[in-house]
Amino acid sequence: MNNPQLNQHGELQHLLSTEGLPVRIVRDILDRAATFLGEGHAEINKVPLLHGKSVFNIFFENSTRTRTTFEIAAKKLSADVVNLNIGSSSTSKGETLLDTVDNLCAMHADMFVVRHATSGAAHLIARHVAPGIHVINAGDGRHAHPTQALLDMYTIRHYKQEFHNLTVAIVGDVLHSRVARSQIHALTTLGVPEVRVIAPKTLLPSMVEKLGVRVFHSMEEGLKGVDVVMMLRLQNERMQGALLPSAQEYFKYYGLTRERLALAKPAAIVMHPGPMNRGVEIDSSVADGAQSVILPQVTFGIAIRMAVMSLLAGTST
Amino acid sequence: MNNPQLNQHGELQHLLSTEGLPVRIVRDILDRAATFLGEGHAEINKVPLLHGKSVFNIFFENSTRTRTTFEIAAKKLSADVVNLNIGSSSTSKGETLLDTVDNLCAMHADMFVVRHATSGAAHLIARHVAPGIHVINAGDGRHAHPTQALLDMYTIRHYKQEFHNLTVAIVGDVLHSRVARSQIHALTTLGVPEVRVIAPKTLLPSMVEKLGVRVFHSMEEGLKGVDVVMMLRLQNERMQGALLPSAQEYFKYYGLTRERLALAKPAAIVMHPGPMNRGVEIDSSVADGAQSVILPQVTFGIAIRMAVMSLLAGTST
Amino acid sequence: MNNPQLNQHGELQHLLSTEGLPVRIVRDILDRAATFLGEGHAEINKVPLLHGKSVFNIFFENSTRTRTTFEIAAKKLSADVVNLNIGSSSTSKGETLLDTVDNLCAMHADMFVVRHATSGAAHLIARHVAPGIHVINAGDGRHAHPTQALLDMYTIRHYKQEFHNLTVAIVGDVLHSRVARSQIHALTTLGVPEVRVIAPKTLLPSMVEKLGVRVFHSMEEGLKGVDVVMMLRLQNERMQGALLPSAQEYFKYYGLTRERLALAKPAAIVMHPGPMNRGVEIDSSVADGAQSVILPQVTFGIAIRMAVMSLLAGTST
Repeated sequence: MNNPQLNQHGELQHLLSTEGLPVRIVRDILDRAATFLGEGHAEINKVPLLHGKSVFNIFFENSTRTRTTFEIAAKKLSADVVNLNIGSSSTSKGETLLDTVDNLCAMHADMFVVRHATSGAAHLIARHVAPGIHVINAGDGRHAHPTQALLDMYTIRHYKQEFHNLTVAIVGDVLHSRVARSQIHALTTLGVPEVRVIAPKTLLPSMVEKLGVRVFHSMEEGLKGVDVVMMLRLQNERMQGALLPSAQEYFKYYGLTRERLALAKPAAIVMHPGPMNRGVEIDSSVADGAQSVILPQVTFGIAIRMAVMSLLAGTST
Repeated sequence: MNNPQLNQHGELQHLLSTEGLPVRIVRDILDRAATFLGEGHAEINKVPLLHGKSVFNIFFENSTRTRTTFEIAAKKLSADVVNLNIGSSSTSKGETLLDTVDNLCAMHADMFVVRHATSGAAHLIARHVAPGIHVINAGDGRHAHPTQALLDMYTIRHYKQEFHNLTVAIVGDVLHSRVARSQIHALTTLGVPEVRVIAPKTLLPSMVEKLGVRVFHSMEEGLKGVDVVMMLRLQNERMQGALLPSAQEYFKYYGLTRERLALAKPAAIVMHPGPMNRGVEIDSSVADGAQSVILPQVTFGIAIRMAVMSLLAGTST
Repeated sequence: MNNPQLNQHGELQHLLSTEGLPVRIVRDILDRAATFLGEGHAEINKVPLLHGKSVFNIFFENSTRTRTTFEIAAKKLSADVVNLNIGSSSTSKGETLLDTVDNLCAMHADMFVVRHATSGAAHLIARHVAPGIHVINAGDGRHAHPTQALLDMYTIRHYKQEFHNLTVAIVGDVLHSRVARSQIHALTTLGVPEVRVIAPKTLLPSMVEKLGVRVFHSMEEGLKGVDVVMMLRLQNERMQGALLPSAQEYFKYYGLTRERLALAKPAAIVMHPGPMNRGVEIDSSVADGAQSVILPQVTFGIAIRMAVMSLLAGTST
């Protein structure tokens, strides 16, 4: 099967998933992102790489945070940005998703940033658009959220330099998390020898081991000796659901506390994609502690999105 | 009576309606739009014609699609664009429409793009603003939607070159359609010798013939030998209303199918202002077929809006 | 106590309140605003002072009007503007206010424009952000709305030249008004010898005299001989409340009519922060009359916001 993300020359045509993304492209994105961050990351300079290009943020699912990071990244590249909250728009008038996309293409969009509640929506759009148009998946259902995973990889490389000697634990609701799926694929692509998932059975996909991870149901076991702790956000709707007794109960067994973090390597870093539920999946003392790199992740996220957009804009058609 | 769209020198001061719009101005807009579209319409280049100008999209009625086309057109002209969804704003605080407009004028708006559910709203605003400010009607009640009609004229000219030898049919809910009104005025202004409307009696204004059109109640009769088929969107609220038995019933009698389209000239083109109700007013095989020019309409719409804005910006005050 | 608005060099670091704002800074802002307004205020030119900077409008409370003025001001300074309506965003996902702010800081925001229903919210954010980031209070609870007060001062200076010889009356719901508080502090800072408040007892804070104002409960008494009448907006929710019998009753005793305005000096000007409730706090004949400077206030508001933003952007860190 063709890789739908690459063109015939093996260049990145769309960013849909970290699954099947060649390691050379992952490394290219990380290197490119570094060029946008000045010394000490104090400043991201505006550059004219996308001047005259139109980037459409089409969000069928609301996410101010993710939309904002893409908007800033596009504006730092001097693109024109159009925000479309499609939930309240044409599809509510009965227009099909692909009719909406066709119309936006006809408006000479250069790039789509797509968030959709349905897995595969970004792929569907990518297959549908004309060759000159690029699609970035900003989260589709439970499937993938590749820019989040790439900024996580950037963060790990920034603090740990290498991937081949790391033990990384992903903690929490893997079952419903597109972030976790994209992280696992990115980590294995970059050669991380041991990727662990730590979660109760009810929050793990069946046969999760097939993704190449070690499964732990105990924080005390799973955190032992890890270099990187990647927390997942517990969605509010899970907390009242049948899968979990309560937020308090979850924190008791799977919340990241200082005591549990002490089981990891002394130089271990703590990551979280945000927004955090303090006191549910993570204790405030850890979230704000010396090992937390949660805010640098956000900064790196702007640079990663600039890198992906500028890479796509340079892809021949 | 003065034409409220023209200044004392006969230049376009506001674009409110295609009714009474001089043919020289219509042709100027079409010619100007052509300059923004490159070879093959693959690209619309960003130009600095409105640099430093502020365009306000004030939408009292929600329409992401139309608002987006104006936003893109303004940004391609390098204007600053401010989107105002007034439904949820000052008018809900009890401020009058004209107070809102006065305030926006005082913010040094250069151009207003106005959509309002009430016929005549754009005229009211145009009469009220200071001489240096331009108003574009982006749809007012059942009255007018002139940029839609102008992009339709551009489309017809693009595919048919001339107007003086055409038979054009407008099909559907003419009664509630500002698009149809604007199309009829534009077509007759440009010298189309035969404009037909095809609709059930319940969806036609009384005395529609006074607009200079031939009335048909049968698709089979009305489509015979036409060069251009302009479909109208059937508003969802009509489908459950007293005027129509059901969407299925409507499609049975007035849906554009391949069989019916075959009654038109072989080179006839099919247009639709979008968003389409597939299977209600138009069959998918026609919408996506070789005679459909529905997506080019969207592209031409950006160029037409750029043309109107740049023409207005150059009008002396 | 340190003034939280100033840095160690006494420069403006944040604009949070007119209370405690040094008179030299107030005058600097007024002078700077004048430079953005051309002859006759017909034009505000776009300048590159904030090119490459990101301004975040973070509105926890909806206000299209105020948000729009800041958006226009920032765009006239060539900044990139990101609008965040936080009510519908992360905080609804359970994220704390300061987590939201931390995240936006990590996105390399240069400036925050904050509106919040809670008094002190902008101060809280200002204390929290890194040194290079500036906060502008666009209204916090009943506490302060400094840019409104500064544009009012600009308006007074424009029409009256001096402050030291004026009698100014503030009329209406002082109790719930952040605008009134900020106006009183600005007027006394600029040396206005007599500031009056005119309101029923139920709409005055207890011990309002401590702010340095003279209290009147009668329009006829309070308006006598004043140079400036500053009307306050009566919030809709007050009109049905226990504090007021009805809007009609309010207008009868406290509405600004031509008859009452005749008690002021012949050259007195009438101001209102908008949006107006015509027929409640102000009669239309006054609002649209020769003494009204309500629309110039709006124009000056753009220039004042440009002045504040450009001043902050130039502050050393």
